[in-house]
Amino acid sequence: MISPATVPEPVCDPGSVRNTSPAGKATSPVTAPRTLARCRDLVRPSLSAAIARLHPWHGEMAAFSLGWCGVGGTPTDRPSEGKGVRQALAVLCAEAVGVPGEKAVAGAVAVELIHTFSLMHDDIMDGDETRRQQETVWKAYGTGPAVLAGDALFALAVQTLAEVPGPHTAAAVGRLSGTLNGLVRGQAEDLLFSARPWTGPEAVRTDEYRAMAELKTGTLLGCAAALGGLLGGAPARTVAALDRAGRHLGVAFQAIDDLLGIWGDPDVTGKPVHSDLRQRKKTFPVLAALTENSPRTGELAALLHSPVPLDEAGAVRAAALVESCGGRAATLGEARHHLDAARACLRSVSLAPQAAHEIDVLIGFLLHRRA
Amino acid sequence: MISPATVPEPVCDPGSVRNTSPAGKATSPVTAPRTLARCRDLVRPSLSAAIARLHPWHGEMAAFSLGWCGVGGTPTDRPSEGKGVRQALAVLCAEAVGVPGEKAVAGAVAVELIHTFSLMHDDIMDGDETRRQQETVWKAYGTGPAVLAGDALFALAVQTLAEVPGPHTAAAVGRLSGTLNGLVRGQAEDLLFSARPWTGPEAVRTDEYRAMAELKTGTLLGCAAALGGLLGGAPARTVAALDRAGRHLGVAFQAIDDLLGIWGDPDVTGKPVHSDLRQRKKTFPVLAALTENSPRTGELAALLHSPVPLDEAGAVRAAALVESCGGRAATLGEARHHLDAARACLRSVSLAPQAAHEIDVLIGFLLHRRA
Repeated sequence: MISPATVPEPVCDPGSVRNTSPAGKATSPVTAPRTLARCRDLVRPSLSAAIARLHPWHGEMAAFSLGWCGVGGTPTDRPSEGKGVRQALAVLCAEAVGVPGEKAVAGAVAVELIHTFSLMHDDIMDGDETRRQQETVWKAYGTGPAVLAGDALFALAVQTLAEVPGPHTAAAVGRLSGTLNGLVRGQAEDLLFSARPWTGPEAVRTDEYRAMAELKTGTLLGCAAALGGLLGGAPARTVAALDRAGRHLGVAFQAIDDLLGIWGDPDVTGKPVHSDLRQRKKTFPVLAALTENSPRTGELAALLHSPVPLDEAGAVRAAALVESCGGRAATLGEARHHLDAARACLRSVSLAPQAAHEIDVLIGFLLHRRA
Repeated sequence: MISPATVPEPVCDPGSVRNTSPAGKATSPVTAPRTLARCRDLVRPSLSAAIARLHPWHGEMAAFSLGWCGVGGTPTDRPSEGKGVRQALAVLCAEAVGVPGEKAVAGAVAVELIHTFSLMHDDIMDGDETRRQQETVWKAYGTGPAVLAGDALFALAVQTLAEVPGPHTAAAVGRLSGTLNGLVRGQAEDLLFSARPWTGPEAVRTDEYRAMAELKTGTLLGCAAALGGLLGGAPARTVAALDRAGRHLGVAFQAIDDLLGIWGDPDVTGKPVHSDLRQRKKTFPVLAALTENSPRTGELAALLHSPVPLDEAGAVRAAALVESCGGRAATLGEARHHLDAARACLRSVSLAPQAAHEIDVLIGFLLHRRA
């Protein structure tokens, strides 16, 4: 959990803003959880129908990965699905360009399938054994099946978009394929970072990390937003602005993830306390801390270079050093900067006020999320 | 090597047929190796340019997989690239519908990238450590990097087609995405076959095997042929016939592969003698042999069920049993049947004679290939 002392004031308090219908009649207040749930409900039938087209074995692994069922296909009592930020962004951006969210559902399904695919494959590459408090797909079903199920989701995402009737199909598929290219490029950089030293001329710089985060996380959020606009028939300038907004959101999202990876509440994130430090992940807070010119950075680097695993005390000390070297504040600044930039992109084009407001509330929520 | 005694007479002898130019002037004789080389030369610059767009790490793994370089990127003295049947089929089918082969190059690049991707991922799933007499990508670079490089090739294939200018882009991408869906479905069936028994009601039937082969091998060859027609502006009926021809070719291709997997010459295939039997792969010859009602099938089943690895004598005996139970003849019959069916599909539509002839020579070559 990001400590309240360092969290900026929300631009809009999720609990206090009221939704105003086109007729001006006040309805239920806009909250990010409510918006996310509304979008998930809108997209869910098409997402389920898409997954039902898969080979049953892959369909089960996809449903397992989405938290809809356990191994063997038994529905879960406690669905542990993600927030669905990507699908929500596609739906909200279609609404923001003045069409019903339904127009963007194929795009929402495609980005959600790509997100699921990328988690499945990334967990193999990173050797991660748990996600959202359950086993990862490769851990539960084996590496080979998880590789193949990921491929199946990838293919299904492209197929879903390629089958959208209307004049925007080729542009939508072109955008998705460019996104996929960016996604794998970002993951490659992330994997290569792990082999580089913490300090010295070969150390990973924060600007390199930001470029990686934009590719790995930003391109898909940008694609989600852009597909909403594109399938909604928006002009190219609006689609480009939505894409840029989504990319900034992605960089901010990654920064918050990095904060939660060190200071997140294990009961909420489902990961051990200080997990990213224990795994010596090269994340923004640590890289930013190491740029400070102080004796503490030497101590931090020594802890990170140590050949033995970090014990509890070591991880606590490393987290304290990252914080005192300014890594935590720099990361929060990074998140705020990119959320502000996302908002500026959205303000640069004409959008339907209601949807634009819901996106704004969602942005505030992302900054304050605890998992 | 398929023994000459069981090989049917070629429809056209690769060495004896002369290419006749449109003006009727005799030119160099058409041979499959010459046709394959011509198509590879036509496609190679675009394939290289596509691969150059990848992250350099993925570009190296792709070039390694294609036999263009060793680990580290050093060009190989002895390129061990594949025959390029898929790219050739795309080019020849464009020519067959009356346009220059150049029109199909983006399609040829896309199918070649998909083929490379699928080999990369299949080798991980199957645990295969060598291919074309060199290490497989996962063995040389690690599983995680090979998963990601495969994903990158997959994305690049879609992007390559999505960027083709003109009116056929959406249809071409739609066809590719449907193909990808079929491909992963076929691989899933193949993986699931390995867990099923050799005999009894749960045994894999030859018709199930054929359906798997059509998905796993046929869809991509069908896609290659259809993309050639589609990008060449052929009518839907012609594109559908080319697709069907390619699918039949794929089933035949797989049958020949299965014969080479048992009786192929190790010096030519690069695989150990009887390799599929030693690995207890469920292939057509064995499944067909086991359908025979004779005491020999009991002996064959016992060898296949044995918990100890098959030694040299066991593999020789199993191969002899498969042959004497008719598995070899049935597989050759399967290959011939599907090559004939492919030819019938091609004859059902109007095609440019020169290209149709080159395809026919290629079909004859595929039946007689030794690797």
